[in-house]
Amino acid sequence: MRVAVVGAGVSGLTATKCCLEEGLEPTCFEQSRDIGGLWRYTEHIEAGRPSLYPSVISNTSKEMSAFSDFPYPEDLPVFLPHAQLLDYLRSYAERFGLREHIKFGTTVVSIQKRPDFATTGQWDVVTEVDGKQTSHVFDAVMVCSGNFSEPFLPLHCFPGIERFRGQYFHSRQYKHPDVFQGKRVLVVGMGNSGVDIAVEASRVAAKVTICTSRGAWVLSRVFDHGYPWDMVFNTRLMSLIRNSLPGPLSQGLINYRVNQWFNHENYGLQPEKRGTGRPVLNDDLPSYILTGRITIKPGVKEFKDSSVVFRNCPEEEPIDIIVFCTGYNVSFPFLEEAVIKVENKHASLYKYVFPTHLQRPTLAVLGLIKPLGAIMPVTEMQARWVTRVFKGLCRLPPQSVMEKEVNEKKKNQVRRFGLSFDEVLKTDCLVYMDKLASFIGAKPSVLGLLCRDPWLALTIFFGPCTPYQYRLGGPGRWEGARQAILTQWDRTLKPTRTRVPAGSSSPCPSLLTVVGFLLLLAAVVFCFQ
Amino acid sequence: MRVAVVGAGVSGLTATKCCLEEGLEPTCFEQSRDIGGLWRYTEHIEAGRPSLYPSVISNTSKEMSAFSDFPYPEDLPVFLPHAQLLDYLRSYAERFGLREHIKFGTTVVSIQKRPDFATTGQWDVVTEVDGKQTSHVFDAVMVCSGNFSEPFLPLHCFPGIERFRGQYFHSRQYKHPDVFQGKRVLVVGMGNSGVDIAVEASRVAAKVTICTSRGAWVLSRVFDHGYPWDMVFNTRLMSLIRNSLPGPLSQGLINYRVNQWFNHENYGLQPEKRGTGRPVLNDDLPSYILTGRITIKPGVKEFKDSSVVFRNCPEEEPIDIIVFCTGYNVSFPFLEEAVIKVENKHASLYKYVFPTHLQRPTLAVLGLIKPLGAIMPVTEMQARWVTRVFKGLCRLPPQSVMEKEVNEKKKNQVRRFGLSFDEVLKTDCLVYMDKLASFIGAKPSVLGLLCRDPWLALTIFFGPCTPYQYRLGGPGRWEGARQAILTQWDRTLKPTRTRVPAGSSSPCPSLLTVVGFLLLLAAVVFCFQ
Repeated sequence: MRVAVVGAGVSGLTATKCCLEEGLEPTCFEQSRDIGGLWRYTEHIEAGRPSLYPSVISNTSKEMSAFSDFPYPEDLPVFLPHAQLLDYLRSYAERFGLREHIKFGTTVVSIQKRPDFATTGQWDVVTEVDGKQTSHVFDAVMVCSGNFSEPFLPLHCFPGIERFRGQYFHSRQYKHPDVFQGKRVLVVGMGNSGVDIAVEASRVAAKVTICTSRGAWVLSRVFDHGYPWDMVFNTRLMSLIRNSLPGPLSQGLINYRVNQWFNHENYGLQPEKRGTGRPVLNDDLPSYILTGRITIKPGVKEFKDSSVVFRNCPEEEPIDIIVFCTGYNVSFPFLEEAVIKVENKHASLYKYVFPTHLQRPTLAVLGLIKPLGAIMPVTEMQARWVTRVFKGLCRLPPQSVMEKEVNEKKKNQVRRFGLSFDEVLKTDCLVYMDKLASFIGAKPSVLGLLCRDPWLALTIFFGPCTPYQYRLGGPGRWEGARQAILTQWDRTLKPTRTRVPAGSSSPCPSLLTVVGFLLLLAAVVFCFQ
Repeated sequence: MRVAVVGAGVSGLTATKCCLEEGLEPTCFEQSRDIGGLWRYTEHIEAGRPSLYPSVISNTSKEMSAFSDFPYPEDLPVFLPHAQLLDYLRSYAERFGLREHIKFGTTVVSIQKRPDFATTGQWDVVTEVDGKQTSHVFDAVMVCSGNFSEPFLPLHCFPGIERFRGQYFHSRQYKHPDVFQGKRVLVVGMGNSGVDIAVEASRVAAKVTICTSRGAWVLSRVFDHGYPWDMVFNTRLMSLIRNSLPGPLSQGLINYRVNQWFNHENYGLQPEKRGTGRPVLNDDLPSYILTGRITIKPGVKEFKDSSVVFRNCPEEEPIDIIVFCTGYNVSFPFLEEAVIKVENKHASLYKYVFPTHLQRPTLAVLGLIKPLGAIMPVTEMQARWVTRVFKGLCRLPPQSVMEKEVNEKKKNQVRRFGLSFDEVLKTDCLVYMDKLASFIGAKPSVLGLLCRDPWLALTIFFGPCTPYQYRLGGPGRWEGARQAILTQWDRTLKPTRTRVPAGSSSPCPSLLTVVGFLLLLAAVVFCFQ
């Protein structure tokens, strides 16, 4: 069974690897000359490719961002600068022999159903190398082309922008802060890159303002007691609590937690409606606000020649440069609308993967999801499921069922556990991963393990939900998974415990640890009742 | 009564102001051409003057750092960049007409007791302007020359430094991070400037390592729920708890609190001995460690040609630049040792102000203290007390009592509330301020106020101990003090609440606030029993 994989970024690499694992025959088409996709930094911006700024650091910790059978080396930092993340992808490609399946410099021009699609499920894939087109027939297609290539810049939403005489650009164009030297900077929108850019700009600019109509919940990588945020947030215990507490209580808990670092209202960041709000990862923003280096303002009302007026603010503010951090469009130029239609940044995909209305499930979209967590394990899980579906070992539900689910998700997503995600693509990744894992029979059973391997069971339930959990059993079982889970904290602490003062640590646990453990036990008893 | 004030920095300005307030006749000698001392940034380093780097931001919040009758404007950021702090000092000088009492470009060469000192308490002060010396007679002297002018660089403590072929310099020489571009940097010592420099260096350097044998407790300006650290830490309630709980309990509490942001052991920062540790203010360090931009190492064992070996670490680490952040010497070149003797960075001064062995208390040292809080209100309180002593309205205890107290402090300071201060000059500023205030009759009485003005009393007890509290009564009473106290949070929140989403705040307090308040009440009842 021949599978076309479009793109050799994070999703494309793991898709290729999963194909090989399942005995399929992958051909990965990568338009650039190298692997890595988003994570391959280039100083020059290339059309159709994602573009990073050099200071980008991963938002998710290395243990949570690993492919499930390939942990990061223990010496790497807990949150990886982009160059080290690319190194990891390179060693992944090397370890599983992926390069020989990748055709570099090859652009996918079109993917169309073959005339006999209803019976064969086959696709005509046209690719282009140096202007020369070739046509191929594939039994299945995995679309891994990413969603950070086409900037979304809705200038018509900003009255007066046409007469603004200063400079403006989309965040995709941003590389170095020099451009802001001595300038008054306005950052429009506060996603992760908006805040990153504002922080960097503020070190050289005369003044930096972020404007946001919706606000955001800002989380730090350095979470409770300094543990990585995702290793605290994404545990089975926390997920159980979030999803089983009654709505208002769960929402109150989340509200309390997100305001623990700093009160979002006092910092001008409070999301517009109570109980809604996007999470943004940034370690610096609160202290930059408190020290006056960054000012938060409401949404733009209009631009003037050399200034901006904000909603509900009488005075206008002079500015020299605007950076629009307004995100990206999702698009599949090589696919007909009949296959995938993107409306309002949302495509009707079952489990964010399969178009709901194809006669045969031989086309899948990977990585078109923005989990509140790392993308690598999620896209890998998608690939593991997809390859099983391609092989006919997993079946999709009837079209009507899939469509119903997709439509309900569109509506409900916004209400999920207090954090509303403005894009419907964001989801609670633990629940999602478990769902896909259960489809292929790789979901770990905590209760089952409790008798056979109680220590492992406890680590899985109370500890961070590291991807290795999904390699303990089922297809693609990995011998090293148990060991990887039990040593996950060793690899996390190794790079920062670089100085151990003599006789510092006391061997007996502190009173607080004991109390904490008892509370946890109580919680478990309560949850299993 | 004529008073000589040496230096026109923070201490010198408030000393001059307090002299005027008490009807004394101050003459302030400032060797440079302008006021501001430490806080007047200059691009070039001038001998005998402090030197800042341009990114310096105050470590204490504006409400806690105000002179007690002169609040900061409400629009200023909560933590002030140096330029805005200097502006504040300028308006203070303007408001109280201080400039006409300052002789600029005038260096104090020597201060000596007059022959009839035992009866008159007078001093011969020799000053120098453009190489020409003049002698003056003064009835009293206030030494406000600061302690950030003479770098402390004990090269003999670093074996092998003489054969190190890279560049090295003291933190005083540091201005801009460009010098670190692409280099492997070692920062020796982790005081406030050490960590600041390491953070800035890490944005351009190839690698940054901080080495510290003693470790430190790192605190963030952004404290509990985003409130400024000193406004949470320095309250009368917290001070009462710290000073009345039994030692181990109080120490456990402090240990828990300082590790709440991040576990210092996991980040390699744990102080060497349990229950000791210096506080360092930095908002960035933990996230820079977690993302691998800064590495913490133990103390230096020795330097080699182009590398360093750390204690208890076998491998040597290649380095290109060393920054010694080893602090400053305290020195009074214009005073004889018979007047003040500095030993091991410590001078025998009663309440850190009066030499214990002078026949008459007509010489005082201001600002030679490193409070865990802002220096401005402390040095102002010292000046208020000192001028009352000069006038004979306050009396010092007998020499033997003063000497006994100073010697005991040397020994005890180290054990105070879990935070040991490596320099004996650091102290719990609330207790210290209250003590001096009680000498001059300006200490606020919470119990007394409880009947007359209960809201004010509660604000004073539970709220941050802002300096205005010391202007409610006694000499130098300020009409605006009550209002300044009741509006302290308004001025704090104003600069950051720059965006208020429609209908965000609910008027009724949350359940958690109520529970918190009940707990506080319980604590009070417990404390007053």
